[in-house]
Amino acid sequence: MRHSISVLVENQFGVLARIAGLFSGRGFNIDSLSVGETADPEISRMTIVVEGDERILEQVMKQLNKLINVIRVVDLTKEDHVSREMLLIKVTANKDDRAELLSITDIFRGKIVDVGPETYTIEATGDEEKINAFIELLKPFGIREIARTGRVCMGRGSKFVKA
Amino acid sequence: MRHSISVLVENQFGVLARIAGLFSGRGFNIDSLSVGETADPEISRMTIVVEGDERILEQVMKQLNKLINVIRVVDLTKEDHVSREMLLIKVTANKDDRAELLSITDIFRGKIVDVGPETYTIEATGDEEKINAFIELLKPFGIREIARTGRVCMGRGSKFVKA
Repeated sequence: MRHSISVLVENQFGVLARIAGLFSGRGFNIDSLSVGETADPEISRMTIVVEGDERILEQVMKQLNKLINVIRVVDLTKEDHVSREMLLIKVTANKDDRAELLSITDIFRGKIVDVGPETYTIEATGDEEKINAFIELLKPFGIREIARTGRVCMGRGSKFVKA
Repeated sequence: MRHSISVLVENQFGVLARIAGLFSGRGFNIDSLSVGETADPEISRMTIVVEGDERILEQVMKQLNKLINVIRVVDLTKEDHVSREMLLIKVTANKDDRAELLSITDIFRGKIVDVGPETYTIEATGDEEKINAFIELLKPFGIREIARTGRVCMGRGSKFVKA
C-alpha cells in the first residue's frame, strides 16, 4: 500500500538529506516527494509517498519524530484527505491534431501554458489516477517531455491535520 | 540568484538521499524540490531550487553528473523556460466572506477542491510570484494550512531541454 507521509520541518540546511537517508536506510524507495514553504518561511512541509511494509514504516516515522528539525509527522493515508499533484507535459501538436488536443485539455480542465511551432505545453492538476489517464490520452500525439510534482495532501473539511 | 536545476535520475533506492546530501555537503539549502515519474516509470525527474554561489553550484552539478544513477543535469535558469508550482491552501470561509473568496479564486484561476463547515480548500497553480500574491490576498481571511509543491520547469517552445 502506498502511504502519503506529511512532515513539517524547520527549513534548515541538511534536513532533507537526513530524512531521505532515513527512508533509504530502511529500504524504502521514495515514489514522490515535494518540499515547499508554508505560511511561515522558516517551516517547510514535505510530502513523501512511499510503498512498503507498514511495521517498518511506523518505525521510520518514530525515528523521524526524533530528529531535531522535525516538528511533526503524520501518515495522511489514515486520514480523510485531498490529494493532488501537478503535471507539465509537452506534446507534439500537428495542425490537424490541435483541435482535439484543446478539447482533451478542456475536458481535464488543463491549461495550455506554452505553444511552440510544433508543440503544446499543457498543465494539469488532479489526483494520480486522473493525471495518469490524461497522460495515456496524450500518448498517441507524441509526448516530448513530462515533469510531475510530487503529491501534496491536505486533510478534508475544517479539521486541521497536524502536519 | 535562485537556480532551478533539473536532474533526470534512475528511479532507484537511495538516489534522492545521495543527491540531497551532495547539495547540503556543499552548504546549499534546498528551497524547494519535486520528484516525480516521467513517461518512463524507471526514470524520475527532480527539480531542485537552490540559491547560492554560482561557482560552487557548477562544481555540485559536475559531481551530480558523475553519480551512477544520474542521467542528466541541466541548470534551467540559463534556458528560456516555463516554471510552475501548485498550492493547496485551506482558509477560513465565513458566510460573509464566501462570495469574495470565490471571486479572488476565480481571478487567480484557482479551484475550490474541498469545502468544510468553516473552510474552503483551494488549489492554485502558477509561478512563484503569482502563488505568493494569492497567499497574500487570502491572509486576511485566516489561513489554516498551506502545502506547496516545489517548482517544476520545462523549456519553452519545441526545444527539448535535455533533462
